[in-house]
Amino acid sequence: METLKQCMQEVERIFAEEQFLAEPHELYEPIDYTLRLGGKRIRPSMLIAANALFGGDTATVRGAALGIETFHNFTLLHDDLMDRSPLRRGQPTVYTKWDENTAILSGDTMYALAWRYFLRQPSPRLHEILQCFNETAIEVCEGQQWDMNFEHMTLDEVSLDQYTAMIRQKTAVLLAGALKIGALYAGAPQAEIDKLYQFGIHLGIAFQLQDDLLDGYGDTAVFGKKTGQDIRDNKKSYLPLLALGKADPTQADTLRTLFAAKDNMDEEEKVRRVMDIYEQLKLKDDVEHSIDTEFHAAQIHLDSIAAADTRKQPLRDLMETLAGRKK
Amino acid sequence: METLKQCMQEVERIFAEEQFLAEPHELYEPIDYTLRLGGKRIRPSMLIAANALFGGDTATVRGAALGIETFHNFTLLHDDLMDRSPLRRGQPTVYTKWDENTAILSGDTMYALAWRYFLRQPSPRLHEILQCFNETAIEVCEGQQWDMNFEHMTLDEVSLDQYTAMIRQKTAVLLAGALKIGALYAGAPQAEIDKLYQFGIHLGIAFQLQDDLLDGYGDTAVFGKKTGQDIRDNKKSYLPLLALGKADPTQADTLRTLFAAKDNMDEEEKVRRVMDIYEQLKLKDDVEHSIDTEFHAAQIHLDSIAAADTRKQPLRDLMETLAGRKK
Repeated sequence: METLKQCMQEVERIFAEEQFLAEPHELYEPIDYTLRLGGKRIRPSMLIAANALFGGDTATVRGAALGIETFHNFTLLHDDLMDRSPLRRGQPTVYTKWDENTAILSGDTMYALAWRYFLRQPSPRLHEILQCFNETAIEVCEGQQWDMNFEHMTLDEVSLDQYTAMIRQKTAVLLAGALKIGALYAGAPQAEIDKLYQFGIHLGIAFQLQDDLLDGYGDTAVFGKKTGQDIRDNKKSYLPLLALGKADPTQADTLRTLFAAKDNMDEEEKVRRVMDIYEQLKLKDDVEHSIDTEFHAAQIHLDSIAAADTRKQPLRDLMETLAGRKK
Repeated sequence: METLKQCMQEVERIFAEEQFLAEPHELYEPIDYTLRLGGKRIRPSMLIAANALFGGDTATVRGAALGIETFHNFTLLHDDLMDRSPLRRGQPTVYTKWDENTAILSGDTMYALAWRYFLRQPSPRLHEILQCFNETAIEVCEGQQWDMNFEHMTLDEVSLDQYTAMIRQKTAVLLAGALKIGALYAGAPQAEIDKLYQFGIHLGIAFQLQDDLLDGYGDTAVFGKKTGQDIRDNKKSYLPLLALGKADPTQADTLRTLFAAKDNMDEEEKVRRVMDIYEQLKLKDDVEHSIDTEFHAAQIHLDSIAAADTRKQPLRDLMETLAGRKK
């Protein structure tokens, strides 16, 4: 595995060879649909890259690669239902294409299937691997709950630290967990695994902050969705939380009012007014600085790992790919 | 563990000593509520009884006992949401007391917590134990899907065999799985585990058939709910499916019509007419015969297990308790 692309191709092969359909088909068709929708399959690619970093044989992590992606897709399936998101990767979500009960039960079954994939692949460190997977799963659930809690809170009630803790749980721990699991299968030393985990955490936070930034400043043609959606949704993302801390009393009051606005407000006018304040505060520079800080921390952890430099290439590719999203 | 009562008391102790509350409390309060609602805790009691049957130390299965009950309660939580059941054990279900999203996410988290409990308890056969737990979970999901499929099917479209296969997956495999896991922790020989598993399957089917019978013929004061609910719900339970096979053409047509009836029909009149046909067919005798056959098969498997007879007492108590529900 010399490049990220090779890791991703391996993941595609693994998924292409796997059969997801079974009886009752009312249960498994939505599972097959979800797992065939594609996506970048970042987590299993990272797992394979981490395994190769410590000289592991990719054949020994096929189950774990399937397991981590199946779990991730299960969380998306249930999140889409909870968030009432009609589309995922440009296609109807399961609860809209089928119904709510199908989304609940197919999701539950995907979670069990993720375990089946993990249990398929023996390892002397299987207990540790399964514990890592499970504690990660619990953190992802907790992160989703904090995210839902924030929806009902005002801008003042959510601190920047709380927000960062939430995205750490909801996004970063699964990326870090995927890396850790790949390294555990390769029998990597604990100290190196810890560094790799921290690399994943910082990368995950950088990734999410970038997502927040792109919502405000992304190029719609590249980003693939309309900007300003977080503002329309009153979402307490990194941008308004950081802005509130920098704002003068008048700007702060305007932000509070706009982020508490109900549906009866003109949405485009709201986006424009929020973005105006962001501009006045030169917020973009600050957010980019935060992102760079996280990428830099990730870089330092990756550099410090005792492994051949050439073997780090897929993870360097990954960092560059993620960092390059803004372009 | 000399009696079922002792096993149940041990389970109560285990649950009393466990802390289910954590942060975010919006996530964990519904979990604590669900796990503190009580119930008979049959599955962990069976797990402990099976462990003791082969000379296991109860302290080694505390995690598994918590895990199996937490999993069972997770399935009830999601089933209640899918079935829109407002009450469970006489108390509001999670989706009514909180909301749908809370029911989805707290349920998902309970499933992850079940794994945490299982992973807490090491065993030389842990891999086999976890595989048993996971394959059981998948079967329970499949059984729930078949049950939901049957709702949209006519009486003629569901065969008695399909119905039995459904209750086997939805109810019996979890009872059998609990027994198997308890025995695996005790290091029981495979052949004995297989017999114990079959005991659990037959017991589980008997239990569910009895539930179906009680819906028609139970003593409301003892049964705790109004009889005839399956008939009001057009539920393709064992009773109408067996009745259809015995009915003459006129009775069969009446059953088909009544079990396809929409809400605009007088419900009590419908219950009375279905019960009249059951009486004409002497259906109760047949169902009791089926139940006895399952209990008898369970008994034979239990008798055949190579273990001291006194150690079988808790499982004999269980059979008697379940068999005695009709009284």
